[in-house]
Amino acid sequence: MTPRVALISTGTELLRGRSLDTHLSRIARELEPLGFEVGFHATAPDDLVRIVEEIRLAAARAPIVILTGGLGPTEDDFTRRAAAEAFGRPLEFSAPAWSAIRARFRKFRIPMAANNRRQAFLPRGARLLPNPLGSAPGFEIASGVRRFFALPGPPREMIPMLRRSVLPRLSPQGKPFKLWEATVFGMPEGTVDEIVAPIVRRGGASYGITVSGGVIRLSVKSAKGSPAAIGRAISKALGIHLVGPGNLEQTVADLLLRSKRTIAVAESCTGGQIVDRLTDCPGISASLLEGWICYSNAAKTARLGVPGDLIRRHGAVSGEVAASMAEGAARAARADVGVATTGIAGPSGGSRAKPVGLVWHAVHYGGRTRVERREFPGERADVKRRASNLALDLVRRALLHA
Amino acid sequence: MTPRVALISTGTELLRGRSLDTHLSRIARELEPLGFEVGFHATAPDDLVRIVEEIRLAAARAPIVILTGGLGPTEDDFTRRAAAEAFGRPLEFSAPAWSAIRARFRKFRIPMAANNRRQAFLPRGARLLPNPLGSAPGFEIASGVRRFFALPGPPREMIPMLRRSVLPRLSPQGKPFKLWEATVFGMPEGTVDEIVAPIVRRGGASYGITVSGGVIRLSVKSAKGSPAAIGRAISKALGIHLVGPGNLEQTVADLLLRSKRTIAVAESCTGGQIVDRLTDCPGISASLLEGWICYSNAAKTARLGVPGDLIRRHGAVSGEVAASMAEGAARAARADVGVATTGIAGPSGGSRAKPVGLVWHAVHYGGRTRVERREFPGERADVKRRASNLALDLVRRALLHA
Repeated sequence: MTPRVALISTGTELLRGRSLDTHLSRIARELEPLGFEVGFHATAPDDLVRIVEEIRLAAARAPIVILTGGLGPTEDDFTRRAAAEAFGRPLEFSAPAWSAIRARFRKFRIPMAANNRRQAFLPRGARLLPNPLGSAPGFEIASGVRRFFALPGPPREMIPMLRRSVLPRLSPQGKPFKLWEATVFGMPEGTVDEIVAPIVRRGGASYGITVSGGVIRLSVKSAKGSPAAIGRAISKALGIHLVGPGNLEQTVADLLLRSKRTIAVAESCTGGQIVDRLTDCPGISASLLEGWICYSNAAKTARLGVPGDLIRRHGAVSGEVAASMAEGAARAARADVGVATTGIAGPSGGSRAKPVGLVWHAVHYGGRTRVERREFPGERADVKRRASNLALDLVRRALLHA
Repeated sequence: MTPRVALISTGTELLRGRSLDTHLSRIARELEPLGFEVGFHATAPDDLVRIVEEIRLAAARAPIVILTGGLGPTEDDFTRRAAAEAFGRPLEFSAPAWSAIRARFRKFRIPMAANNRRQAFLPRGARLLPNPLGSAPGFEIASGVRRFFALPGPPREMIPMLRRSVLPRLSPQGKPFKLWEATVFGMPEGTVDEIVAPIVRRGGASYGITVSGGVIRLSVKSAKGSPAAIGRAISKALGIHLVGPGNLEQTVADLLLRSKRTIAVAESCTGGQIVDRLTDCPGISASLLEGWICYSNAAKTARLGVPGDLIRRHGAVSGEVAASMAEGAARAARADVGVATTGIAGPSGGSRAKPVGLVWHAVHYGGRTRVERREFPGERADVKRRASNLALDLVRRALLHA
């Protein structure tokens, strides 16, 4: 049984949806190599009573509790008071905390506000956790076998403190579990599940499956030994639909770089997203020669050499034009691969024959151009995402001659 | 007192940090206009016992419980069973649910897996919530005065169902509180806070401030009356740093469309992200003429007319080249505005004189080209994001002649 950590994110802004809570995702990944799992996660508002309640609940559920946020100098920063109350200890002025806070303000020559002195009060017996990148110190409370860690909210400060002051205090727990992870594309979730479930069951492992914009992520967890053998069986069963351990763009980037092939991209409805995703991959400049975003017909003709007559005959959103864009991009950039999209991202611009969500994708490679038509559901951003997913997957398949 | 909603996100992948939970943020924003607040939020793994436990806890805390995820066809989709157990009802086959599922597979000509039949079993007495965009139907259980809603995990399916089948079932609660929201750019968070705090305090309101990649979001909440007057005072105090109610790209798109100005974009290190963000704004095709992603020096010269000599003298990452790229993009596309970036996104490619994170930004408009040099902290994706933020803000300022 993996030891469980209970995580509490605090912040009324989180519950109001004004900002996105990335703490769970970041902290879980930091804990994993040590063999710890986040078993419980709750979000509490900036409210003394509620934070006390969540700390008590968390401490009853898990031996290790990590709480983020509420350590600032303002009146609605309740973490110090709430922890003191939850663990039945008074707040006491901490001289080391106060001197750390003052040193930081001196260093950056920021005038200190009177309320910053609040940040130097910690529950009695708490250990100060220094914050090298911010003014709010954290603290740790040991209560019997239980450990409580309070860290500041901004991830830029929180993560370094977690690494420096929290993780080294947790003794690695036996052998951390191993994960086998993979991206799958081009198959419905239910079908993937039907294929994967029996393989995982035979291997005595467990697995998770998530889907976003048609991209499926699998993660197989095996308590005993490595899940790699299960992974190999899954890969074989899924065939070409198994993209690889990384995401679509990283897989395409790796294929291009390994085979020393170059690529050029011509985008209409995806509006730069294919290139943006490829350029998230370090080193891609060796393969990615150029990208064009050509919304207008004139640009398609001037930049990519798409014949005006072709556009008039078939319309800009057509397989013919997509193919001509992909070929034109490869030709103009002298690239091995050309990839293109043209479609109707919406919300307007659709018709009965060419509805919103219709996208033509084309990939030119090795003297051959493949074209794929799709009608995507959803809003503008969904259509862009799904179209860039499919375009990247078509490049992957072309490079694999599959 | 605003009535509280308890929200449960399910998914082991969320607790493992494999995917980011955006449900809280999205659902909170949908509930707000009706006067409902999310008071409680928890994340549960794909584990029957734990989901039952979270449903019971949530139902004890709030009259309305919304649970997302776990409605798929796979074995670790426990929501139907957990809700049945938590509310003490058996699972029953629902003919309407089954026929809706089959209709969807027929419509998209997807072969149905046998396990999809699982999705047609609902707790006795549950009301079916149709899912127009996916195969997983949701359901509602009324238990005394309490309401429980189960919705699928993918936001693309979940949000339309929330709007169609959940929100209309909640009676609007008194006067919802009013929010004034704004994006702020180009000022440190602490300085914004120092300016905003006294204005909000004088107005008897409260506010929240969040920051991501240098972009600050403010939200002022006023219980009595409209916070618009406070917002006006804040806008005046922040001056040009106040971007507007929307994000940077929407603000730039609105300015372009309203002033009937056209734009062309030339990107090196931001790799298409500026265009990708602009094309998230519906209708932008009237203003956005073209975009180029020119990583190589040859492309900068061939597409944008950047003199080879200029690149040799100053290097591709220089103010001179950024300016020439912006001017070349405007010229080639015959656009009113040209915007360009060139920099070193990392992780490699940096030097002492030109470190990783160095980006030159340029905007050409009205016969004038402005250039801005920055060294951004963080990893490749951070550098791209911060550079595209600043480039968009420079366009905004140029259009405002500020």
